[in-house]
Amino acid sequence: MEQSLLEALEGIFRPRSVALVGVSEREYNLGYRWVKSLLDAGFPIVYPVNPKGGELLGLKVYPTVGDIPGEVDLAILLIPREAVPDVARDCAQKRTKGIVLYTSGFGETGPEGKELERQIVKIARAGGTRVIGPSCLGPYNPSVKLITQYPFPRKAGAVGVISHSGFLFNYLVSCVAATGIGPSKGISCGSDCDLSFVDFLEYLGQDEQTRIIVAYLEGIKDGKRLLSVGRDVSRNKPIVIMKGGDTEVGREASASHTGTLAVPSAIWKTLCRQTGIISVDSFEQMMDTLIALYYLPRPKGRRVAVITAPGGIAVTATDACIKLGLELPRLSEQTRALLANLIGTLGTNLKNPVDLGPMGAMAAENYVKEAMRIVARDENIDMLLVSFIGPRTTDDVKDAKSAEALLAAIKEGGKPTVFSGASLQGWDRGELKFLRQSNVPVYPEARRAAFALSRLAEYSEFARSAQT
Amino acid sequence: MEQSLLEALEGIFRPRSVALVGVSEREYNLGYRWVKSLLDAGFPIVYPVNPKGGELLGLKVYPTVGDIPGEVDLAILLIPREAVPDVARDCAQKRTKGIVLYTSGFGETGPEGKELERQIVKIARAGGTRVIGPSCLGPYNPSVKLITQYPFPRKAGAVGVISHSGFLFNYLVSCVAATGIGPSKGISCGSDCDLSFVDFLEYLGQDEQTRIIVAYLEGIKDGKRLLSVGRDVSRNKPIVIMKGGDTEVGREASASHTGTLAVPSAIWKTLCRQTGIISVDSFEQMMDTLIALYYLPRPKGRRVAVITAPGGIAVTATDACIKLGLELPRLSEQTRALLANLIGTLGTNLKNPVDLGPMGAMAAENYVKEAMRIVARDENIDMLLVSFIGPRTTDDVKDAKSAEALLAAIKEGGKPTVFSGASLQGWDRGELKFLRQSNVPVYPEARRAAFALSRLAEYSEFARSAQT
Repeated sequence: MEQSLLEALEGIFRPRSVALVGVSEREYNLGYRWVKSLLDAGFPIVYPVNPKGGELLGLKVYPTVGDIPGEVDLAILLIPREAVPDVARDCAQKRTKGIVLYTSGFGETGPEGKELERQIVKIARAGGTRVIGPSCLGPYNPSVKLITQYPFPRKAGAVGVISHSGFLFNYLVSCVAATGIGPSKGISCGSDCDLSFVDFLEYLGQDEQTRIIVAYLEGIKDGKRLLSVGRDVSRNKPIVIMKGGDTEVGREASASHTGTLAVPSAIWKTLCRQTGIISVDSFEQMMDTLIALYYLPRPKGRRVAVITAPGGIAVTATDACIKLGLELPRLSEQTRALLANLIGTLGTNLKNPVDLGPMGAMAAENYVKEAMRIVARDENIDMLLVSFIGPRTTDDVKDAKSAEALLAAIKEGGKPTVFSGASLQGWDRGELKFLRQSNVPVYPEARRAAFALSRLAEYSEFARSAQT
Repeated sequence: MEQSLLEALEGIFRPRSVALVGVSEREYNLGYRWVKSLLDAGFPIVYPVNPKGGELLGLKVYPTVGDIPGEVDLAILLIPREAVPDVARDCAQKRTKGIVLYTSGFGETGPEGKELERQIVKIARAGGTRVIGPSCLGPYNPSVKLITQYPFPRKAGAVGVISHSGFLFNYLVSCVAATGIGPSKGISCGSDCDLSFVDFLEYLGQDEQTRIIVAYLEGIKDGKRLLSVGRDVSRNKPIVIMKGGDTEVGREASASHTGTLAVPSAIWKTLCRQTGIISVDSFEQMMDTLIALYYLPRPKGRRVAVITAPGGIAVTATDACIKLGLELPRLSEQTRALLANLIGTLGTNLKNPVDLGPMGAMAAENYVKEAMRIVARDENIDMLLVSFIGPRTTDDVKDAKSAEALLAAIKEGGKPTVFSGASLQGWDRGELKFLRQSNVPVYPEARRAAFALSRLAEYSEFARSAQT
């Protein structure tokens, strides 16, 4: 990426010092809480700013940014919009790398707000200062202890997070943390008045700590650049995006939210196809996909083998796969012979889906693991979806042993393998609990497992074609 | 429904005695477990049958059904298919109301199995005995302690359950139990060789205990009858169906599973429109819909007001509603004036979606409940979807009080109201936990809340049109 942009973004994500402008001593004051969060996380240099001066949490409060003796790499502004231009001027003079505008009431309110926004950006950029927002929470980087929001993890993970909505930024970070993979860096970027969604995408694209990017996007300022940056980044790491404003009414709501122009869904679909961006309709789908992308090897194609014990699940899992564009090829003669040898042909189905029948359901740890081994060797198969009858014991030792046998079968097979539970409630019990703990993607329903596999296959196809 | 059919079904669902044919003393024997489950549940008269005779769990084992001294209302056959005709003859002679064929390997295996099936039905019906299955678990009725499966609830609820797949029958019953509404009666009907899915639908349709019917359907034997029965039942109680075999490959799997002919999805959609049957794509959607149908009053139309605190959720919730065919009309001038008076116009959106802005997010218990009151009075609005910022306290007393205030607002509004959480993990905490405990439908994501409302509105429209 362009050198000056990279430098600005490095300053914003790895600031040595942060000024919080608009703090008060009251505990429910936003500034108070942000300062406290930074201090608690161990961020080294924090400057609270308030015209009244005084002290806050043992720190000197400076009347203005100009009064701060040292350098200020990042300034977070929690002040009314009218007060912003003066502070921006101070920041520009100090060669601050970035200003975060938490305040809303700019471009999304009409021409007057838009004009104010333009002035602020002009003032800031005169000193080489870039603006993030308005209506945002700014950057998050646990590696340098840049944590302004209380519940955010302090340990860095591997998922970059970008969001136009500040609230959904919080939400996404908490979802990513809950998967266990954890966020690497994040940015709540608001209304893109200067630095925009695409800048942050490009930055996280080249960030070594970030292996996958998840984002909530509302509007696109520069479609052409998203096309080229998206494509470049996707080549090396998956981007999973939930887009708001997918409908006319949603777009109207979006305009009064971030003030950006939302993109009609037909254009969005084309853009995703061209860039390899993985589009999802919900955060549930996003997390389901994230887990598959993170933990699984890339499949060679979209040919799935469905292995189940009970017949009804075989049918519904198959429906789900086919509807999502996956293929269920017939298994080879040899595979079917081996399966017949394992479990017989009475009450079973050995084509694909493989229904192991009542025997398979009764003793999953024996038959399922062997069936997985046999099927994974079939050349027609790229991925395995195993739908499980769920816990039959309440014995942790037995379950752990059974999970180990299944893990060995996955490892031997070497092909992306996901499991789905057999009960919305019980999917996280028994062997499945232990499989999850061993980082095997386990989903409550076959439909969700199929969705994750379909996105994994789609991304792998893109990544392959982009390499050649 | 036809008198002789009703009598047979009453005998099957309320048998005074049950014979279990094919039991052994081994604890892992299926018959053993079914007998034990019936005894543990307190079912009064159980006859184990095995040619060897002897004793089982303190009961005399009879060599044949013919040897049983008393009447046998229901016979459950857990025996190889070749042994079925003789037992069917004994049952017919005893004027048994119903035979449950657990065994598979009949019609789904080819012409020979089909012929055997026909013979069995002919033998049974000669004595007025009806056949359920093959490949099924038969009836479940907690009210008369007819419980053959161990984990099934002993207390009757309000949801009738029908399933072509035995495994998915177990699954559905456990899902319905977990919602807290609970199953009223259920039937795992297998491959419909004699009594069929539609017969059971008609029966549960006239059953007073059953307020809603959920079903997993694979194939339809008699489309015309499903059309008329479905329509009649739907008039009075909702039917929610997940259909397997929705794709070509799924249909093939279905043929080798139940042997019934699966229905292409275009025909299915038409049938649903004409009957008012609510079609869902997953069991998650089924349970989400069930909760809304059970706990909410019927909306007058499909016009939703979305109330949220954070803007991003407003946009995504709106998208979800519109995609599902719901409408988000503008709120009236008066409503908007009242909302402006409540929360101001800065950083808020008072059209629809209603975004209460940062203030609303900070103090949900005050602003959200008032906004709900104001919006519910708007004539343009039929339903409310409230998306909540989630727990802000860890104080159960505060949360319970806040939930009470929200409950009062729902009651005063009198319109169907659902909540969605603001985190896939935290959606069941804070006020939302208490709302759920008070039977308010709460969903992890706005998309799922919107789905449930869309199905509720669709069904209500059908029920209204069917009454006139």
